[in-house]
Amino acid sequence: MSEPVRSRPIGVFDSGIGGMTVVKELFSAAPQESIVYFGDTARLPYGSKSVETLQRFAREDAELLLSFDVKMIVVACNTLSATALDEVERKARGIPVIGMIGPCAHAAVRTTRNGKIGIIGTEATIASQAYEAAIEEESRRAGIRCEVHSAACPLFVPLAEEGWTEHLATELIAESYLKELRYRGIDTLILGCTHYPVLSNVIQRTMGTGVTLVNSGAAAASVVVELLETEREGEEGSVSIPHGSPEHRVLVSDVPRKFQAIGERFLGRKLPDARLVTWKEAWTISGSMEIPS
Amino acid sequence: MSEPVRSRPIGVFDSGIGGMTVVKELFSAAPQESIVYFGDTARLPYGSKSVETLQRFAREDAELLLSFDVKMIVVACNTLSATALDEVERKARGIPVIGMIGPCAHAAVRTTRNGKIGIIGTEATIASQAYEAAIEEESRRAGIRCEVHSAACPLFVPLAEEGWTEHLATELIAESYLKELRYRGIDTLILGCTHYPVLSNVIQRTMGTGVTLVNSGAAAASVVVELLETEREGEEGSVSIPHGSPEHRVLVSDVPRKFQAIGERFLGRKLPDARLVTWKEAWTISGSMEIPS
Repeated sequence: MSEPVRSRPIGVFDSGIGGMTVVKELFSAAPQESIVYFGDTARLPYGSKSVETLQRFAREDAELLLSFDVKMIVVACNTLSATALDEVERKARGIPVIGMIGPCAHAAVRTTRNGKIGIIGTEATIASQAYEAAIEEESRRAGIRCEVHSAACPLFVPLAEEGWTEHLATELIAESYLKELRYRGIDTLILGCTHYPVLSNVIQRTMGTGVTLVNSGAAAASVVVELLETEREGEEGSVSIPHGSPEHRVLVSDVPRKFQAIGERFLGRKLPDARLVTWKEAWTISGSMEIPS
Repeated sequence: MSEPVRSRPIGVFDSGIGGMTVVKELFSAAPQESIVYFGDTARLPYGSKSVETLQRFAREDAELLLSFDVKMIVVACNTLSATALDEVERKARGIPVIGMIGPCAHAAVRTTRNGKIGIIGTEATIASQAYEAAIEEESRRAGIRCEVHSAACPLFVPLAEEGWTEHLATELIAESYLKELRYRGIDTLILGCTHYPVLSNVIQRTMGTGVTLVNSGAAAASVVVELLETEREGEEGSVSIPHGSPEHRVLVSDVPRKFQAIGERFLGRKLPDARLVTWKEAWTISGSMEIPS
């Protein structure tokens, strides 16, 4: 017997537990919705890997969520949103897919007063220039001009996972990554990685109180809620009204050390029970390849 | 046509490029040997992952090297050596397997003067207590008593990969990780992760000049050379004398950003051409699982 259509869950995935910062926002913005979360903890982190590999991971991760008959997919990972959203959309075949980039760009363009927006993220996210493109589109729509500055902050993910949120070393690393953005006079900074809200205190202190931080989880959650409402107003929308109490599932490809502690740091409450996804792997070796220099 | 037996290569593998510090030592200690290197760059890092996942990765990685008809396998990753050496040995079916733990413990016990040995490594390596067991065995053999102190240094890997070898933040992080070991009065410190030699300057400064650092790459390379010589003296050994000029191969499962720069930082010279290994994955979902708290 298949589940009634009305209670289909929202699928959310990320490289690991960072996407729980998005789930936290969804719990508060749409508490009636059931969520299936997948964290690819065996292959994390994604931020330093190549676009080709990220696109493959995105296809595999999306396929896993689709097997749970999800009504919507939230790509709760800025790196995948920046490099592989098309891949997820192709897999999803008409099911709505919400990435992090569009909602954040939208929020940032509506937040800035001086038109100077900063973006911080993983190396893959920053290299993709996906945020620059999205902000340009949003600015045109809003009829304003924006200047964009970006910085890759690769050490922020391990610092957030280690919980080094108030260490002097974290302050020094933040200063090193952010001083250029501060010098540029931005008034709005997109936290373009789901790990970064954990470090928002140190980032705010480093940037100064005049800079507004845009949290990608909150921005994406508000787009999800908007979409749920729009679809509810229409007839036969692919997004439906849940009934009964929500049922949450957490799937992970590994249970790393400190899983519970890290997950709860991100979620801000106890983690639901988790199930392990085992990847059966078989390799093939390609021909000679070009190594980018 | 199969290759002549005499030129079978030595297989070396690691989660990524860190194992190149071992290859660097092999290049200098056994320049006539051909090497097949595999770095599992798509799934790195290994140090924070669970033992079950690490054992699966070890089996898959070893199988890949065995397909190159290697005459010996060097597990150039302390984390896998500490958690999954048995798995590799089972796969290898009699082909010699050299891990990092035994050679380092041997070198450390012969280096210490006051019998106080420190170990630093990833969380998985330190949690395994594999070094403690190996040092106990080596001490018994040497007829001395050793006291062992250990510290996990999870941020050292990302710092080494970022090349932050002389940053003040790195000094502070090193101080935070190492002060307990300094306080304990160790005179010998095992760099129990193939990434750490890149940070040896800051580690040496933090520990003081009275502490001798044991580099796992160098320790393992000397065991490889010893084994090659022993087998050459015997008849029909599984380890054979190479002829002609050595032929090196590098295989990686991803070409991450900054691959060339990171690889050359570890190897200390230009990387050989690399080939991409693509893992074809298919997942299965297990039943409910217990999450360690």
